[in-house]
Amino acid sequence: MTDLPDTNLVMLTLVKPEGELEVFLERRPMPEPAPHEVLVKVLATPINPSDLGLLLGAADMSTARASTRDGLPVVTADIPAPGMRAMGGRIGDALPIGNEGCGLVVKAGSSPEAQALLGKTVALIGGEIYAEYRCLPAQMCMLLPDGTDPRDGASCFVNPLTSLAFTETMRMEGHSALVHTAAASNLGQMLVKICAKDGIPLVNIVRSEAQVALLKDIGATHIVNSSDDDFMDKLTAALTETGATCGFDAIGGGKLAGQILACMEVAAVKRMTTYSRYGSDTFKQVYIYGALDLGPTILNRSFGLTWSLSGFLLTPFLQKAGMEVNMRLRQRVVDELTTTFKSHYSHEISLTDALALDTIAGYNAKRTGEKYLIRPHG
Amino acid sequence: MTDLPDTNLVMLTLVKPEGELEVFLERRPMPEPAPHEVLVKVLATPINPSDLGLLLGAADMSTARASTRDGLPVVTADIPAPGMRAMGGRIGDALPIGNEGCGLVVKAGSSPEAQALLGKTVALIGGEIYAEYRCLPAQMCMLLPDGTDPRDGASCFVNPLTSLAFTETMRMEGHSALVHTAAASNLGQMLVKICAKDGIPLVNIVRSEAQVALLKDIGATHIVNSSDDDFMDKLTAALTETGATCGFDAIGGGKLAGQILACMEVAAVKRMTTYSRYGSDTFKQVYIYGALDLGPTILNRSFGLTWSLSGFLLTPFLQKAGMEVNMRLRQRVVDELTTTFKSHYSHEISLTDALALDTIAGYNAKRTGEKYLIRPHG
Repeated sequence: MTDLPDTNLVMLTLVKPEGELEVFLERRPMPEPAPHEVLVKVLATPINPSDLGLLLGAADMSTARASTRDGLPVVTADIPAPGMRAMGGRIGDALPIGNEGCGLVVKAGSSPEAQALLGKTVALIGGEIYAEYRCLPAQMCMLLPDGTDPRDGASCFVNPLTSLAFTETMRMEGHSALVHTAAASNLGQMLVKICAKDGIPLVNIVRSEAQVALLKDIGATHIVNSSDDDFMDKLTAALTETGATCGFDAIGGGKLAGQILACMEVAAVKRMTTYSRYGSDTFKQVYIYGALDLGPTILNRSFGLTWSLSGFLLTPFLQKAGMEVNMRLRQRVVDELTTTFKSHYSHEISLTDALALDTIAGYNAKRTGEKYLIRPHG
Repeated sequence: MTDLPDTNLVMLTLVKPEGELEVFLERRPMPEPAPHEVLVKVLATPINPSDLGLLLGAADMSTARASTRDGLPVVTADIPAPGMRAMGGRIGDALPIGNEGCGLVVKAGSSPEAQALLGKTVALIGGEIYAEYRCLPAQMCMLLPDGTDPRDGASCFVNPLTSLAFTETMRMEGHSALVHTAAASNLGQMLVKICAKDGIPLVNIVRSEAQVALLKDIGATHIVNSSDDDFMDKLTAALTETGATCGFDAIGGGKLAGQILACMEVAAVKRMTTYSRYGSDTFKQVYIYGALDLGPTILNRSFGLTWSLSGFLLTPFLQKAGMEVNMRLRQRVVDELTTTFKSHYSHEISLTDALALDTIAGYNAKRTGEKYLIRPHG
């Protein structure tokens, strides 16, 4: 565990007051773990949509240009005025980035909990992980079995815990079945497997025949293609069959969230025996947890008055759910890391690659089925 | 209490399978109260937006034509295809109408609770009140002080209980201040008085200078005009000052609900000390309780992920709140009937007038400051 370099390559994202975004790599001194900390050599870290929100923010990436500084890549792009208003809180702060990853503990502080991790493979969460090394408290690491492939350990937190949070939320709020959009995503595939295992009826909404085929292959039962002419009818039929009254929407913009509420209402009205001018009294909930479409959400309110559309974010959910639920969910992720929670990556790139303009265009397109993994040490 | 006529004039609304709405008056036999029931001579009954939803439904009133049948008025209008789908559950049923009113108990069943109301002025709820007489269980009446003007007793339930429900909901869900739209309405004026009395900061959103003046006259503190160029800035300032994170929106369509959430978020971010890519962790709730604008709700999601937009309906709220809260709210309405809960009517009309095309056009415009009261006996 010696032979550590003197410096650590880290990625930073900076909003400049003149309306420019700058994303760059910087060599910083190698951090020294405090007694409760460990130094992790980052072997794999995914690019999640939630990372892109911080990395590129509201910049207009069609204006992106590449340069170098001290031999390291720099990407610069213009930020439109509304974007600058939205990002007012971060102007002038070069922020490190990367929510989660997997690595090897190469140095540990003196505390027993830190020492216990020395030489171990761990999953880590807590930001600043797009780097060669990350120094962080031992408790922010999750111990993985020896020999775990870093590819398998890289996405232990965000997608696995988010998909588990969907089923937990569903149960806590008294629903018995789920709807999910962008359902062919890595997260969507995990949700299919969780629901199959737990016996939860799940309606998967996708937007292409290729995605229908992908989900069929992994055993999904209810798959609806929003590109079909009879999408609303098919969605209503699936909601009627499953009784799903709780949805999670990764898309956010456009009409889809409202269409889900509308079809839930049609399914609920079918179960009613008397007419009510206010629609059904079945409570219908859709959570928006992503923003694959940054455009406005458009609700044609044809679904009565017993509904809710809300934002959903993992961290507040975990805080509210409490320690016991957190531990149970984390243990399940470790137990089912190479089955239920297996992630698939279409591209493996270096930290330097991650700042190449064509690579950025690739991962920023957020295409379902394409997922980028950064391997800082190749 | 004799001299009752043999028949009772009632208003009915019918959706015909061929895509027509028919609203008409019909003479029905005078009902005879069962032991637990009373017969109320209806002296005043308001036309609320919630009545219009049932009365005119999704009909295209620009196609309305007047005729008569058996000497009584009939109004017919075409219903567009989407409207027919929405109203599928009521096709072929001639539905009585009128949510609430005030009248005199002219006949009572043999039970003590019914007999106790004989000769008394009561407020009543329960539908079918656009009629000369209404026979209903004694427990659906609220006893009013002798000599109560029927104008004052006509709107004891919908607006007073809805406005009280807003403040109850605010407290139950942990907020400390409110936002209200279409705030110059009868309901809005009640809310201004309730909040003043209870010390609840209230941000009133209106859409004209005349409405600003009206609310100033009754002592409202925070009034924002959505027609002003700097509306968003002024709304943000009022939300910052009051800390309001709970809103009730009567309009429903358009951008307003989303603008309220956006300004709540700007106010919340001002209170934050560190930047978060997900926005503030302040929970922001807007309830849509009306549909003055039937167009789509458009949300430009610039308010993080800690928010909820929901439908709000009085009856489920009251059911959830329980008997004790219900009794407390009703008692307050009776106690403050001619002060806090005083309603103002711009037009008094007969049952027959209510089916005149120009009168329908008047009340269907739902203009703030205009409110129609039906006086079935002049």
